[in-house]
Amino acid sequence: MSNLIEPKILKGFRDFLPEQEIPRKVLMEKLEEVFRLYGFVPIDTPVLEYSEILLRKSNGETEKQVYRFQDNGGRDIALRFDLTVPFARFVAEHKEELAMPFKRYHMAKVWRGEKPQAGRYREFIQCDFDTVGTDSAAADFEILSVMKDSLNALGVSGVTIHLSHRGIFNRFLEKLGIREKSEDILRTVDKLGKTGEEEVLRLLSEITGKPNALEIMEYIKGKDSFEETLTLMEEKSGGESPDSVRLKEIYSMLKNSGIEDSFILDPSITRGLDYYTGIVYETFLNDLPGIGSVCSGGRYDNLTGLYMKERLPGVGSSIGLDRLIAGLEELKLIKKTGSFTKAAIFCQDTNLMCEYQKIAAELRKNGISTEVFPEEKKMGQQYTWAEKKGIPFGILLSGNSLSLKNLKTRDTKEGCSLEEVIKALKEQD
Amino acid sequence: MSNLIEPKILKGFRDFLPEQEIPRKVLMEKLEEVFRLYGFVPIDTPVLEYSEILLRKSNGETEKQVYRFQDNGGRDIALRFDLTVPFARFVAEHKEELAMPFKRYHMAKVWRGEKPQAGRYREFIQCDFDTVGTDSAAADFEILSVMKDSLNALGVSGVTIHLSHRGIFNRFLEKLGIREKSEDILRTVDKLGKTGEEEVLRLLSEITGKPNALEIMEYIKGKDSFEETLTLMEEKSGGESPDSVRLKEIYSMLKNSGIEDSFILDPSITRGLDYYTGIVYETFLNDLPGIGSVCSGGRYDNLTGLYMKERLPGVGSSIGLDRLIAGLEELKLIKKTGSFTKAAIFCQDTNLMCEYQKIAAELRKNGISTEVFPEEKKMGQQYTWAEKKGIPFGILLSGNSLSLKNLKTRDTKEGCSLEEVIKALKEQD
Repeated sequence: MSNLIEPKILKGFRDFLPEQEIPRKVLMEKLEEVFRLYGFVPIDTPVLEYSEILLRKSNGETEKQVYRFQDNGGRDIALRFDLTVPFARFVAEHKEELAMPFKRYHMAKVWRGEKPQAGRYREFIQCDFDTVGTDSAAADFEILSVMKDSLNALGVSGVTIHLSHRGIFNRFLEKLGIREKSEDILRTVDKLGKTGEEEVLRLLSEITGKPNALEIMEYIKGKDSFEETLTLMEEKSGGESPDSVRLKEIYSMLKNSGIEDSFILDPSITRGLDYYTGIVYETFLNDLPGIGSVCSGGRYDNLTGLYMKERLPGVGSSIGLDRLIAGLEELKLIKKTGSFTKAAIFCQDTNLMCEYQKIAAELRKNGISTEVFPEEKKMGQQYTWAEKKGIPFGILLSGNSLSLKNLKTRDTKEGCSLEEVIKALKEQD
Repeated sequence: MSNLIEPKILKGFRDFLPEQEIPRKVLMEKLEEVFRLYGFVPIDTPVLEYSEILLRKSNGETEKQVYRFQDNGGRDIALRFDLTVPFARFVAEHKEELAMPFKRYHMAKVWRGEKPQAGRYREFIQCDFDTVGTDSAAADFEILSVMKDSLNALGVSGVTIHLSHRGIFNRFLEKLGIREKSEDILRTVDKLGKTGEEEVLRLLSEITGKPNALEIMEYIKGKDSFEETLTLMEEKSGGESPDSVRLKEIYSMLKNSGIEDSFILDPSITRGLDYYTGIVYETFLNDLPGIGSVCSGGRYDNLTGLYMKERLPGVGSSIGLDRLIAGLEELKLIKKTGSFTKAAIFCQDTNLMCEYQKIAAELRKNGISTEVFPEEKKMGQQYTWAEKKGIPFGILLSGNSLSLKNLKTRDTKEGCSLEEVIKALKEQD
């Protein structure tokens, strides 16, 4: 049998067994429910696109990571490496068909040929939601509110969303006369969480000189309260501006909705990317800040610049699904289960299979997920199967009555009617 | 601006706008609900696999259609072209971790570089469900029952599932002494629906000679009832066999569950593929038989032969999602909608945005999908936006009371409290 192929997957890729895929799906379904309550709608785009579309704006680092090849027709194509570029292409291509403001969510796989390492995969799901076609405080607030509600829906109560504004930061750099170095500065400030103050100060000094670096450090450290920090930001950036007014409007909506305690105005948040122009934010689990931001994003003023003349502003956010799931697992907020089945009907006599199937059909009609063990195997084997799948209840048919067995406690109720079994199972959460 | 890139997708690929993606998602969610009720669990596998894994068993035709390339590490990889081969690899790789019998569903994209034509795409979603690790009549019946329930869940009442058995057909060919030509014969019989009896007879005569061809025609035409056809099949294949007993067992379970009227024993069903060894089936919409089978599959006795010595039997089915959706659209069974939103809160005064957001939050708490128009634009523009999205209700805030407007009929209830609005919206399905 040297002819057998070893069944193996590519490095950096993953199979999801039911005990991983069910929690992931359940989590995504909860997120979708929140998105839909806010009126976000799903779209889908092809996994493969012209390389020209995907890579035009990317830097060399991205390009090296992309799965790119020629198709049989000689076209230069690639697998998408994020959902933002395809969304920009989508909006430009279909702008006449979309009702603006347009709010979409997209949860789908993307691919990057990164060096595989702990928590980094070459195939992973991104979860993006954006509102485009409006530059309004209401849309900014709404994205923040969706973020908070999404994490609540997953059972996470303690989250802190760190918020800042790229426009104010740019005004501040302008005032210092170092606006042209903003990209390097942003990239450096973005490292604060990882490398610490001292190192950031050292790096900033190299870029801007020590006095400017000290100014920047003071700016990004902020103050104790939202209001005080906002005042500091205004002072350092030349006074009140449309950008700082925007932050005030957002803050008043947060207060009005009673969720302001979950938000911190944190001027050190910059989101390295050049792309953002308005508010920017990152989200941390209070009990696990160390894993980094689980949901980040910001406002941009020109999503579709590569494809059309008209500027299209928007605001969006992206949930880091793998990181979030890892965090929720550590916090024991994910119910580990490899099955949806609530009741297993055991098979003690194949001649009764029609009866077993009838009982199963009745349970399913009542919304109870039910499986029939399909063969007359030893009961020990059937119990092992149910246990391995984590099925909570077992049903045995004896004569005209049923026994309902709690497979964890082994408690058994004998002599039940079908109605009694259905009632008992429905009463279990 | 000659620098702009034309936003366009690859030929044979599709964007899904909300009005296409929402119905597709809703449909998939309904299918998943049925799968879960039966205890089928989701898994996921990588989109990219070693070409060796994907292509070993394929014929030249498949190979030509596959998106295959070298990754940056020089590995020969490809995009999956179906979900069956990855499932076989998955089961072989993880067999120790899976509780057998193992029932999985997988709805995911696959890619084939086919010549694009009406209804044929290079990227499409397959929807497979299989039970492996058991060769039992109960598992066969269950798959058929899931198929029937799935289509019912989508609102399709009239479906006919055409059923046959490859094992009996093989016995029949054996008896005629033409078993070694079975592949060509199967392929020809499979064309019956498309080319008609006369052409099939002509082709069969070429393969087996006229007398055998006439025998085959008699066999595949069957009789009026399930029982009579089964008797014919037994007679022509040398009498009762484990295969014909299996069909009887399945039929008695179908009768027992009261769904036998949706099933026809149709010996012309062969499912061209070599792969199947037991029952085979195709499903037709009674009101649209012409679109072909929307759900097909069968039993196989060795899923994982390429990867391991142990034989693993199974039975499975695949829903042709694109074809099914096209059919349901034609039958007006798909609710066309580009939005989940039930209520739009119009913005007449930006200063009241906090109030609007508060109302929206209350509606959402009550499970009502709600959007706030984020800017103070002309009412006409806001109505157009709501209409384009198909939002059924509009809410206006005037003083301390609300107006609830049915955006279709233009009926307006004025002077409502928030509670009244919530009650009224909840009463609408």
